[in-house]
Amino acid sequence: MTVARPSGRAPGQLREVRIQRGYTQHAEGSVLVSFGDTRVLCTASVENRVPAFLRGKGEGWVTAEYGMLPRATHTRSDREAARGKQGGRTLEIQRLIGRSLRACIDRKALGERTITLDCDVLQADGGTRTAAITGAYVALVDAVQWLIKRGEIKRDPIFGAIAAVSVGIYRGVPVVDLDYAEDSDCDTDMNVVMNDGGGFIELQGTAEGHAFRREELAAMTALAEAGIAELVSKQREALAG
Amino acid sequence: MTVARPSGRAPGQLREVRIQRGYTQHAEGSVLVSFGDTRVLCTASVENRVPAFLRGKGEGWVTAEYGMLPRATHTRSDREAARGKQGGRTLEIQRLIGRSLRACIDRKALGERTITLDCDVLQADGGTRTAAITGAYVALVDAVQWLIKRGEIKRDPIFGAIAAVSVGIYRGVPVVDLDYAEDSDCDTDMNVVMNDGGGFIELQGTAEGHAFRREELAAMTALAEAGIAELVSKQREALAG
Amino acid sequence: MTVARPSGRAPGQLREVRIQRGYTQHAEGSVLVSFGDTRVLCTASVENRVPAFLRGKGEGWVTAEYGMLPRATHTRSDREAARGKQGGRTLEIQRLIGRSLRACIDRKALGERTITLDCDVLQADGGTRTAAITGAYVALVDAVQWLIKRGEIKRDPIFGAIAAVSVGIYRGVPVVDLDYAEDSDCDTDMNVVMNDGGGFIELQGTAEGHAFRREELAAMTALAEAGIAELVSKQREALAG
Amino acid sequence: MTVARPSGRAPGQLREVRIQRGYTQHAEGSVLVSFGDTRVLCTASVENRVPAFLRGKGEGWVTAEYGMLPRATHTRSDREAARGKQGGRTLEIQRLIGRSLRACIDRKALGERTITLDCDVLQADGGTRTAAITGAYVALVDAVQWLIKRGEIKRDPIFGAIAAVSVGIYRGVPVVDLDYAEDSDCDTDMNVVMNDGGGFIELQGTAEGHAFRREELAAMTALAEAGIAELVSKQREALAG
Amino acid sequence: MTVARPSGRAPGQLREVRIQRGYTQHAEGSVLVSFGDTRVLCTASVENRVPAFLRGKGEGWVTAEYGMLPRATHTRSDREAARGKQGGRTLEIQRLIGRSLRACIDRKALGERTITLDCDVLQADGGTRTAAITGAYVALVDAVQWLIKRGEIKRDPIFGAIAAVSVGIYRGVPVVDLDYAEDSDCDTDMNVVMNDGGGFIELQGTAEGHAFRREELAAMTALAEAGIAELVSKQREALAG
Amino acid sequence: MTVARPSGRAPGQLREVRIQRGYTQHAEGSVLVSFGDTRVLCTASVENRVPAFLRGKGEGWVTAEYGMLPRATHTRSDREAARGKQGGRTLEIQRLIGRSLRACIDRKALGERTITLDCDVLQADGGTRTAAITGAYVALVDAVQWLIKRGEIKRDPIFGAIAAVSVGIYRGVPVVDLDYAEDSDCDTDMNVVMNDGGGFIELQGTAEGHAFRREELAAMTALAEAGIAELVSKQREALAG
Repeated sequence: MTVARPSGRAPGQLREVRIQRGYTQHAEGSVLVSFGDTRVLCTASVENRVPAFLRGKGEGWVTAEYGMLPRATHTRSDREAARGKQGGRTLEIQRLIGRSLRACIDRKALGERTITLDCDVLQADGGTRTAAITGAYVALVDAVQWLIKRGEIKRDPIFGAIAAVSVGIYRGVPVVDLDYAEDSDCDTDMNVVMNDGGGFIELQGTAEGHAFRREELAAMTALAEAGIAELVSKQREALAG
Repeated sequence: MTVARPSGRAPGQLREVRIQRGYTQHAEGSVLVSFGDTRVLCTASVENRVPAFLRGKGEGWVTAEYGMLPRATHTRSDREAARGKQGGRTLEIQRLIGRSLRACIDRKALGERTITLDCDVLQADGGTRTAAITGAYVALVDAVQWLIKRGEIKRDPIFGAIAAVSVGIYRGVPVVDLDYAEDSDCDTDMNVVMNDGGGFIELQGTAEGHAFRREELAAMTALAEAGIAELVSKQREALAG
Repeated sequence: MTVARPSGRAPGQLREVRIQRGYTQHAEGSVLVSFGDTRVLCTASVENRVPAFLRGKGEGWVTAEYGMLPRATHTRSDREAARGKQGGRTLEIQRLIGRSLRACIDRKALGERTITLDCDVLQADGGTRTAAITGAYVALVDAVQWLIKRGEIKRDPIFGAIAAVSVGIYRGVPVVDLDYAEDSDCDTDMNVVMNDGGGFIELQGTAEGHAFRREELAAMTALAEAGIAELVSKQREALAG
Repeated sequence: MTVARPSGRAPGQLREVRIQRGYTQHAEGSVLVSFGDTRVLCTASVENRVPAFLRGKGEGWVTAEYGMLPRATHTRSDREAARGKQGGRTLEIQRLIGRSLRACIDRKALGERTITLDCDVLQADGGTRTAAITGAYVALVDAVQWLIKRGEIKRDPIFGAIAAVSVGIYRGVPVVDLDYAEDSDCDTDMNVVMNDGGGFIELQGTAEGHAFRREELAAMTALAEAGIAELVSKQREALAG
Repeated sequence: MTVARPSGRAPGQLREVRIQRGYTQHAEGSVLVSFGDTRVLCTASVENRVPAFLRGKGEGWVTAEYGMLPRATHTRSDREAARGKQGGRTLEIQRLIGRSLRACIDRKALGERTITLDCDVLQADGGTRTAAITGAYVALVDAVQWLIKRGEIKRDPIFGAIAAVSVGIYRGVPVVDLDYAEDSDCDTDMNVVMNDGGGFIELQGTAEGHAFRREELAAMTALAEAGIAELVSKQREALAG
Repeated sequence: MTVARPSGRAPGQLREVRIQRGYTQHAEGSVLVSFGDTRVLCTASVENRVPAFLRGKGEGWVTAEYGMLPRATHTRSDREAARGKQGGRTLEIQRLIGRSLRACIDRKALGERTITLDCDVLQADGGTRTAAITGAYVALVDAVQWLIKRGEIKRDPIFGAIAAVSVGIYRGVPVVDLDYAEDSDCDTDMNVVMNDGGGFIELQGTAEGHAFRREELAAMTALAEAGIAELVSKQREALAG
């Protein structure tokens, strides 16, 4: 079964992925991640405090905030700061990023610190949340290494890697890493977060058109597994660089 | 493999489900749904207007709002109206309910009307969003029937039924319809929305402890399919009653 | 002087009043109160903290919050949590409920605790604030008894009972406990809160049409006294049950 | 029965009342009203539009907003504009002022216009809401006269006068027009709004200490009647001036 | 070069300036300042606490808040408290007032106290921010004297005086202290804050029409210097009074 | 007079300035501007609507919004969208950018369109508002050229160029284009906006330490003139590129 993806990619082919560390200079970790034309700046900030519900428990916290520059998209969207609140989509995405990254860190070993991952979309072309998770992982590692180098923590609290990709059914064919053209015209859209051991961390699938079947779910998760394995390699390369 | 569920239920056993129509008198549809001790009041309100982005297109809209009474839970939570905003969890849930129910309605056939599903949790014991979706479907049908009886719409815009259930891995065992005791102590928690044709509408899984594997995903979706089939029967009984 | 009340009731006749304790299971006090078709869920929540202005003074606090489910009314009203603020009417009512109930409790004897009375209207047919006060009193007693049973407080801080009813001039005739049909078509509407000793706690009268005269005031307060005596009996029965 | 009022006034004696018209120059009506040391600036602004619920009905609207300068009081209170919302007390008062003044105007005769009464407390010493109502009435008359002089409306839409005063039980004695010293130490506090025909428009009584009895209510309303008659004379003098 | 200023004033002539101390009674400093028809009530409130960023540093803080009564202007503007936020213009002005007055006070000598300057415009005719700064300085001195008289601080923390005036290019001619008629029709508008030593504290110039030239800047600052010297004399007179 | 600037620059020397057009692809104008380590993304978005106050007048509007990514700075600052409002500094800066750019455009010639300049700081090292103005001008030109190329407007509405730079007194010496190290340790900080004809558009000077004198003002404005001339050349080069 073949279908022409708008980009000409094969069904299981990711867009060009770039992970640029040290993109800005102040943050303890700062990564510009690109999935094709989607570009997200992910910074990791270390602070020596934890939210109220964790005070005095000897544990740290990892959290995320997500934003989209007003003209990251085809038409300008309102600035959330000017409107006075973050929309439901924004809150949903930043909760997803935070939960995903907490799945690879031993919060006891982190100690009473908070690492905040700010994921700001400079340019959007589909898959901003999966790019954000994939880039934020690298920023998180850099921030943790910064703590280790300064002797603030003894052992590395990070176990395993976390990456994410979208999969979907586009004109009847399961495909990976949807761009905007596919995303706005597909039947099913699923975001998958996995670790480098092949375990699922988050799975969020939505039938946009027809309901999807068990076999389609299996095909999509298989594509996601392969794509995420590739993304984890890219993360390793970037961290080795 | 056996495990004692706190409630003594079998892994594939739902809690007692009750669907009480006409619970309040003003709404076009009004359903009190109970999944065990979880009780959600779902009302469907018909209004002759649509959101700005749909004006003049001859299509209707179905949307949802979700709320939790402050003392629906073990300890009192802040009233969102008093805090001045809805939290991320609330927005996420009401977006899910709205998307799920839009998957069973022909919005052209509905005409330029909005049906709002208000899902308010009177008492919470796990699974409030799945109970809300299951109950809101019945309220939606009642509201549509009200429109048909008044001659405002000609043909039934609803195709198929929508129901939802949670599944998870509790102490290593896949189980269906988690109550609070299980929910707060499980490794994986997944909310599944399906139609009566066995197609998936939404799938949202989160690894709370260990990442979950492909086989666990399959076991959970199988449990969800069976549970949702049972819920759809309950909906039919209620609507026939 | 006779007038046909829409409900067929006599001028001094209350609607059917029901007070159902233990309506939900988590709150220390939980009461569903009905004045005819008006149904309000009143929960009392005990917390071991007091507002900042009372810290360290050895006194407790009793406060109230009020909400109306969006479709408790004939037409759907906006959800206050979604609008981002509580309206003036809501704030006015919750301040009234809080003040009323603080009039029957010795806050020193309560100790440094807060009891919050959440009054949520499930269905509205006039008189929601008076039903809320009448039901919240019972929930408050239950919460205080819970504290006494656990040995957390020694002596009962509650002195006397508090109940409330509306009175008004409907088509020239003073009547008690107005339902929505009367409320929206009356000349004067007054909410009266009294204790079981026949003393006035709050009196809030508004001339909707003609200004009311001294004699009308006297007739209305007399009706209120009788109605509240009856409500206090209902509270006693419920608490004895 | 005698008691020393802190101010040395007799129980039925008002504070010195001054009503200064034309206090500021831009508003169609602008009145500085003083009840002793309580000083409130009341402006009436005419606008050729009505709220959405009145559009096209050929009726006007009268509404009020109330504010307290941060240092009108003994200790500085937060600026509501800076806090981002008006408090419950503010909303309650401005709703009261608006309702009170709508009781003396024929909104059909006003035509599709809104008159907004802004009541801003420059200095507070008890009774700010009653002073505001009494002063706002004069500002309203001035604004209506401005409309009549410009030929925008034909017949005077105002029938009767509206004034307000507080009464209370101070150390067992019914007194009128409480200042701050009395207000913060009294058993009962009641705000009474009446028209010049001796009819009650609003009555809001609160037992701060003991519940008040029927006889006390009668004594307080009698004091209010006399006080309001005096205030209406002051309004007439000011308007004749 | 001559031009008829709408008010008939000479280019370098200020409007009539009045500085009335003790305008209200509760604040530690309370000044009604008038620049012609512009009237601003400036109160200074002393509180024994400092913002979080200064705690424990042995320094005080001086800050300002600015407000405009809704009908201080020709047409009614929305009440910021009702809109739920202070506008950009308000925030800009109150930041300017605060910075200006911090330039004349030794915050170490003030000790851990905050003085808040509330500047509320009762009537606006151009130049409200410069009147506010000029009046707030006098209120600040009064508040500091109050602290000194009570023995709470030993040495006067105020060094020098601060005053402000607007200058502009009106129909080609540099003029001082623009009223509303000039302000809304001028090419350049500049607000200048200086101390009594002739030093500039703040300079904020905006070309409304043509860009202004170096020579015009010089002419405007010269006018400002003369005007501010006159204002400082008025402040001295008022403080001596 | 010599002083070591932390960067080693001469007093009149700008940092390295880069202006990169087409940085993102969706906006009608998109410029990444760098003043040394300060990097601001400026996008210009064209929309076919104008604010309410301009509707039907045949004029366009140019406005700006400003934001700072949370970790653009040395320590993370709160995300304004999450806090629910834009701070005073943000509002002040975006008002400044908007006013500045409106000074170079004929709004009649633009027609009923709005061009919004979003200036988002990716990395901050002092001078973000002056970099933003300088970059936004280039984005504005690109957006206008886009309109011209599409034939939507006939004649170029832009007259002249606008650029901005900061000047200050650092350790007694007037310097241009302060970086963060200078900015946080200088006596006077002034932001100057000029056009390419050498006229002043905006001048905002603040004495952080000592009040500044007339001669210092002259020295600073002279430095600004030279710096801005250089920036205008850079803009021309970029636009020619």
